[in-house]
Amino acid sequence: MMITSLIQVNGASSGIRRSAQVVCGTKVARNPNMEKLKNGYLFPEIWQKQLAHMKKYPDAQIINLGIGDTTEPIPKIITSAMAEYSLGLSTVEGYKGYGAEQGNEELRKVIAETIYKDMGIQDTEVFVSDGAQCDIARLQLLFGSNVTIAVQDPTFPAYVDSGIILGQTGEYADYGRYNGIEYMRCAPENHFFPILSNIKPTDIIFFCSPNNPTGHAASRDQLVKLVEIAKRNGSIIVFDSAYAAYVSDDSPRSIYEIPGSKEVAIEVSSFSKSAGFTGVRLGWTVIPEELAYSNGSPILKDFDRIITTCFNGASNIVQAGGLACLSKEGQKDLHGVISFYKENANILAETLSSIGLQVYGGLNSPYIWVHFPGTKSWNMFAEILERTHIITVPGSGFGPSGESFLRISAFNHRELILEACRRFRRFFRTVPSISSYSLNQTDFFLHQ
Amino acid sequence: MMITSLIQVNGASSGIRRSAQVVCGTKVARNPNMEKLKNGYLFPEIWQKQLAHMKKYPDAQIINLGIGDTTEPIPKIITSAMAEYSLGLSTVEGYKGYGAEQGNEELRKVIAETIYKDMGIQDTEVFVSDGAQCDIARLQLLFGSNVTIAVQDPTFPAYVDSGIILGQTGEYADYGRYNGIEYMRCAPENHFFPILSNIKPTDIIFFCSPNNPTGHAASRDQLVKLVEIAKRNGSIIVFDSAYAAYVSDDSPRSIYEIPGSKEVAIEVSSFSKSAGFTGVRLGWTVIPEELAYSNGSPILKDFDRIITTCFNGASNIVQAGGLACLSKEGQKDLHGVISFYKENANILAETLSSIGLQVYGGLNSPYIWVHFPGTKSWNMFAEILERTHIITVPGSGFGPSGESFLRISAFNHRELILEACRRFRRFFRTVPSISSYSLNQTDFFLHQ
Repeated sequence: MMITSLIQVNGASSGIRRSAQVVCGTKVARNPNMEKLKNGYLFPEIWQKQLAHMKKYPDAQIINLGIGDTTEPIPKIITSAMAEYSLGLSTVEGYKGYGAEQGNEELRKVIAETIYKDMGIQDTEVFVSDGAQCDIARLQLLFGSNVTIAVQDPTFPAYVDSGIILGQTGEYADYGRYNGIEYMRCAPENHFFPILSNIKPTDIIFFCSPNNPTGHAASRDQLVKLVEIAKRNGSIIVFDSAYAAYVSDDSPRSIYEIPGSKEVAIEVSSFSKSAGFTGVRLGWTVIPEELAYSNGSPILKDFDRIITTCFNGASNIVQAGGLACLSKEGQKDLHGVISFYKENANILAETLSSIGLQVYGGLNSPYIWVHFPGTKSWNMFAEILERTHIITVPGSGFGPSGESFLRISAFNHRELILEACRRFRRFFRTVPSISSYSLNQTDFFLHQ
Repeated sequence: MMITSLIQVNGASSGIRRSAQVVCGTKVARNPNMEKLKNGYLFPEIWQKQLAHMKKYPDAQIINLGIGDTTEPIPKIITSAMAEYSLGLSTVEGYKGYGAEQGNEELRKVIAETIYKDMGIQDTEVFVSDGAQCDIARLQLLFGSNVTIAVQDPTFPAYVDSGIILGQTGEYADYGRYNGIEYMRCAPENHFFPILSNIKPTDIIFFCSPNNPTGHAASRDQLVKLVEIAKRNGSIIVFDSAYAAYVSDDSPRSIYEIPGSKEVAIEVSSFSKSAGFTGVRLGWTVIPEELAYSNGSPILKDFDRIITTCFNGASNIVQAGGLACLSKEGQKDLHGVISFYKENANILAETLSSIGLQVYGGLNSPYIWVHFPGTKSWNMFAEILERTHIITVPGSGFGPSGESFLRISAFNHRELILEACRRFRRFFRTVPSISSYSLNQTDFFLHQ
């Protein structure tokens, strides 16, 4: 029996036209896990807010310090390598079809030898991909619906959302929490590192360091403790090192700097933020041979099956770019770009601190994590957008403990970072006192 | 408690070293769906056979007519567009970060306007991706583990394997079958189109036309019947048109040529075989706005959520190539490459027919489907490899009804196709009579 009803096609993200039309339903039931998702994915939701703002203020010069999107040109040595590879595909000698789904052998080798120098990672443990976010979804597919997961709170939302989609969680509970997920609170009072003794054991621990959004890079001692607790509980750590290139102090850039971690940890990483490859798409995942399920079977073998069945390798053109990124000259040039973004972060952090705000992050990360005690993140987001035309990210979008914070990205051209600082200064001058946030927020902030 | 055991890391695919070592297991249980998978993914398994053969005969000139891997250079207009885009990323004006996860707006529009001309597909219904195989996995993620699926038998193995991984099936039964999957037999006696009245209703019907591996392109009448049965049963058709560019007669190139199909069909397609993008990676999926779940909610909206959460868009460089593929000049040049492969298919089909073999496919497809009645596919594969150094694909790898067939790919350089034909002729001359396959196969063929 066909069900006919009037449906508003109400796309969560850009490019979906809103239209009312008669829809004939199939008999296929909607995936109940998809129904559990309370909101759209965070960044498309913010994009919708930006579109609405652009419509309201068509002449406003919006400054986007929201999604962590790189803005600076990619060093020539890297784009030349990709251009050359591409042109080679028009020649008999240069043409290549399918590559190994696990990635170009040379690139796997170079990743193992440069990124994981002296950490004992073999090329055969490195799987090249089209990006960390995509690999997180493939890891979730690998784990399946029966595992339990823990996440830093706040954290990059893809871990939770992909877990919900896979059926690892219960229903939405409240305050941005889903039943069945272990939220590891990371807040100023614990210096953004969870109190591990409070954590309920789970199968999987997603851990992002330097953390997105808080910007906190876990210290060596902290990661030693994390590996210890994973061993004690028999958990697998999925360590997201997408921002490793931003580490300025001696915090580890990889979980494999910690002895014994290969028995308990997978690492996911990316060229997006280190090489400006957000749109070019390249990342990798490391699965050590030692890592095994409770029945002793190696996880690497199952991930290999996922990669060969559900993926077909990263673009060969892009992999040629990855090789150039890891060449000596490429590394040197990229260091310059990363330093540039880090200076941006410093400018933003100093400006916001000088205003009297509580500012975290920025040292080991391109993100500033700003506290507005007593406010709602989405209200603060809306207020700043309305008054300054600056896009930020509401902290609560990263987890319940992100409430009353905003994440501010340092990815932008210098002149726009400076202009944003001017606007922030002007805006906060109009605020009688920073403490008024907590005193009188209902008068002060817009309601969603 | 840690489990310690001796594990042989025995990778199913290339690049995984075999080593014996002590492995400390975590407490995480292996995903039971992964345990259901009987074999490795088909093409890596064949690659392992090829590696073993290369080791045995290091001087043999192996001709690969196995995996459908394009071999001819990509027209210059396309690689130039990608090279130019790449070099532009080193400039302030040309740099682009994250694009829309759904794909570049212009490319979505051009796909809607050229591939789906006069079929009423809107750009907002087109999702650009890194390839059809990856989209199949994402569609399975969308559907979840509660759906039932039907597949052509034989068919491209990713539908079944991704269904197993998602938990849509029962355990392995026998003869290459898994419990819970509806196998729609496609064999010479039904002209490779299933007897639809025999098919048990399922939620999803995967349908590949022109079919990989049989090469059969369903006629308009057949697809009208398929849409009718989907409507009657309330099923969703996932129509894989990856080989549409090879259609030579008036068989539909898209399911959307069939009136009413938008209410029941998703289409997955690819630039891999039409533009030689097997290693470059580009594809797309169409989800019509009309397509809805039994509760009336639009499927497009949920797929959009999957795409924004579990994917980050195809490489922007590669999307620039996709635009060039669909330009007038690009289309003309690609037509030349496709014609070349079709001539290859014709040469292979004529040669194998002239030997007295039963040959199918080739007209609307780059694949020849050859029947060896009374033999086992894997034995025939091994015999041909041993005697001629030619890689083919055992038909049983595509489903139980593929048993006693081989798929032979027309993707190769002309001189190698001609050399393969010489070797086939020589080999089959040594065979007393083609009918001897069925009479005396145990003497004649190698055992696995």
